[in-house]
Amino acid sequence: MSQLKGACLLGQSGGPTSVINASALGVFQTALQTECITNVLGAAHGIKGVLADRIYDMGMEDPAELELLRYTPSSALGSCRYKLSDMEKDDTDYKRILEIFQKYNIRYFFYNGGNDSMDTCNKISKYMQCVGYECRIIGIPKTIDNDLNGTDHCPGYGSAAKYIATSCMEVYQDARVYDTGMVVVMEIMGRHAGWLTGAAALAGVYGSGPDFIYLPEVNFDFETFLSDVEDCYKKNGNCLVAVSEGIHDKDSRFISEYGSDLAQQKDAFGHAQLGGLAAVLANTVKERIGVKVRGIELSLLQRCGAHLASKTDIDEAYQAGKAAVESAVEGVTDRMVAFERTTENGNYVSKIRLVPLSEAANAEKKVPREWINAAGNGVLQPFINYALPLIQGEPDIPKLNSLPRYAKLKKIQAKPSVKK
Amino acid sequence: MSQLKGACLLGQSGGPTSVINASALGVFQTALQTECITNVLGAAHGIKGVLADRIYDMGMEDPAELELLRYTPSSALGSCRYKLSDMEKDDTDYKRILEIFQKYNIRYFFYNGGNDSMDTCNKISKYMQCVGYECRIIGIPKTIDNDLNGTDHCPGYGSAAKYIATSCMEVYQDARVYDTGMVVVMEIMGRHAGWLTGAAALAGVYGSGPDFIYLPEVNFDFETFLSDVEDCYKKNGNCLVAVSEGIHDKDSRFISEYGSDLAQQKDAFGHAQLGGLAAVLANTVKERIGVKVRGIELSLLQRCGAHLASKTDIDEAYQAGKAAVESAVEGVTDRMVAFERTTENGNYVSKIRLVPLSEAANAEKKVPREWINAAGNGVLQPFINYALPLIQGEPDIPKLNSLPRYAKLKKIQAKPSVKK
Repeated sequence: MSQLKGACLLGQSGGPTSVINASALGVFQTALQTECITNVLGAAHGIKGVLADRIYDMGMEDPAELELLRYTPSSALGSCRYKLSDMEKDDTDYKRILEIFQKYNIRYFFYNGGNDSMDTCNKISKYMQCVGYECRIIGIPKTIDNDLNGTDHCPGYGSAAKYIATSCMEVYQDARVYDTGMVVVMEIMGRHAGWLTGAAALAGVYGSGPDFIYLPEVNFDFETFLSDVEDCYKKNGNCLVAVSEGIHDKDSRFISEYGSDLAQQKDAFGHAQLGGLAAVLANTVKERIGVKVRGIELSLLQRCGAHLASKTDIDEAYQAGKAAVESAVEGVTDRMVAFERTTENGNYVSKIRLVPLSEAANAEKKVPREWINAAGNGVLQPFINYALPLIQGEPDIPKLNSLPRYAKLKKIQAKPSVKK
Repeated sequence: MSQLKGACLLGQSGGPTSVINASALGVFQTALQTECITNVLGAAHGIKGVLADRIYDMGMEDPAELELLRYTPSSALGSCRYKLSDMEKDDTDYKRILEIFQKYNIRYFFYNGGNDSMDTCNKISKYMQCVGYECRIIGIPKTIDNDLNGTDHCPGYGSAAKYIATSCMEVYQDARVYDTGMVVVMEIMGRHAGWLTGAAALAGVYGSGPDFIYLPEVNFDFETFLSDVEDCYKKNGNCLVAVSEGIHDKDSRFISEYGSDLAQQKDAFGHAQLGGLAAVLANTVKERIGVKVRGIELSLLQRCGAHLASKTDIDEAYQAGKAAVESAVEGVTDRMVAFERTTENGNYVSKIRLVPLSEAANAEKKVPREWINAAGNGVLQPFINYALPLIQGEPDIPKLNSLPRYAKLKKIQAKPSVKK
């Protein structure tokens, strides 16, 4: 494979995680040390920054500040949710992207994100092949949802899972402090896949876990849920429930949408109701079982809770960025970095492999039904065995005055490549 | 002062904190090493456990498990919210408490809690004096709300403040990742005092703080709030707001109560609304300013987030428990342990002093008006100077598989004292 000389560009895309910047650091540090990469660039707000020609020169950043990206949550370059149209239908965006790639002589393009972002990455890769512009394109996986196809797991998941498990353990301690009893409903992210909500079960490894866990992989039945909770409350005087935001009934209707209906159904439930899923469930438990209830929505906290990040996750995120650059320089293109799980002396080990971008794009990986109990209200040991290794290790987070010290980037607009 | 021989009893009361068990550990470890203390007892669910004769023998616990109390959030013995009637009106409870004290020969009574708990402690102290039962009674302060009178600050506050500041920094990173803008409203505990909500300002020390902070010390005006948010959003494309759950209008009506009104006022606001304060504010911002908004309620997480506890707070909580035992053994009674702040070489130092129980009972300490800005939508440097030392230091939390390892107590019912 011939050596390809030119600039590299990284874009961050989709929802934040605690470790997306660790992948960026893996790309930047590796690329800055790679001779054939002439410039290391970052796009503001993913592909939107490419279209808008907002391209930062990462070589101008202070290396010590860059290093802090390892522990800085969210997307330091900015992110986007932008869907490229099919190039057969409308190639306006693609032409603009090619123009920008040519302007900066971008020959390496890395895109860090989840399903939709891999779709973007795949489309750009196919377009560049189509028009014969030589550019090596690698996707770097990222999503707290852990639903990317083609990889054992995704950077971002382990840290969010650790946040959820730890928070669940703490709430467990808190919620049974009085002898008067309480039901707590914790709402966890995951619209279509239950990986995050299942992580609440890790809290149960040492006996502080939820009594019930409801994932979107199983149809949710309100009456079964109410009887689960009532039985548990009668027996133990309290009940802790973890639910995925994406639970839905057998007709595929999200339970969170029941809220607006309930608001209309004042006669049936006594009060007008609105709010998120946790509020819907909490209000219904209160009305129907008549006990003290608290709904807790982990909201944004769970995806940016970098102070509880998993070192395993941070290290893997970094390695994913590094591997993307190294593979591209070796000649690989049109692939996504993926993780393969193996065991050495009984211990978890992950290895990097490369999968076709088209395999990862758009498809959603769900929790296997056989990892969920028959009643559909809990996860089984294989889930624990899967998730527990991913939350391991405590990062040594730089702090100032006991508060995290995040990277502050200068974000200097890059100069166009000079034609020789 | 004559040496007083007998058992000691600790009760935990009021809402959980991350460090209430550190105070318990301070009591237990000190008392177990004190010769004149014949038995070290703990009450299940505070004074309710005394009334119900549910008294644990802490001497039967494994010392290594006890040691884990230092990092175990919430109240390991169980807590209560129980108000004793005035003894002049009804002395039933008091007689029962005396009976239990006599049964176990309890000569040292320690009660760990906030304003209401100090009221309980004060009443028991006065009753025992009244009936001439010799028992030394010391209150140990505890409240995330930090509103106890007679002390510079309260154990529990520093850890909750650190959780709030760190979470705020993380949400700040998360909430401005897209170029499409968002308003985030974070609801923080504190019904009558704004100490916790003010702690969000610590996130601003390194530039990741809220744009506005609204405390219950200042009347909240909806129109001013909306114009604050709108101006900020227009200027910056986003806005982060921290609000205390206890904000109220000039007529002392809680803003959180507007929710049920809004549910009736469908014509004015378009939709029925219910939920906590964050939901009320978020919905109103959405309706009136028409931007993307997210309401986040820190809920129970902020008071039991022990993984982010302040080492300063843990150490002081332990010292408070230790000082209570030592003072009582020396002959002190009818006092609460309090903290006094001094400075050594410009550094924060806290010293323990003892204040009359009656001084602490029921009174509420609020954030001084001069620590809040003139517009009433932010806190000033004196607040930062006050709160920052309290969140310092990282505890070395025992973990198993990267999850916290909490104390598991046997909770063995104590045997009555044998009359000699």
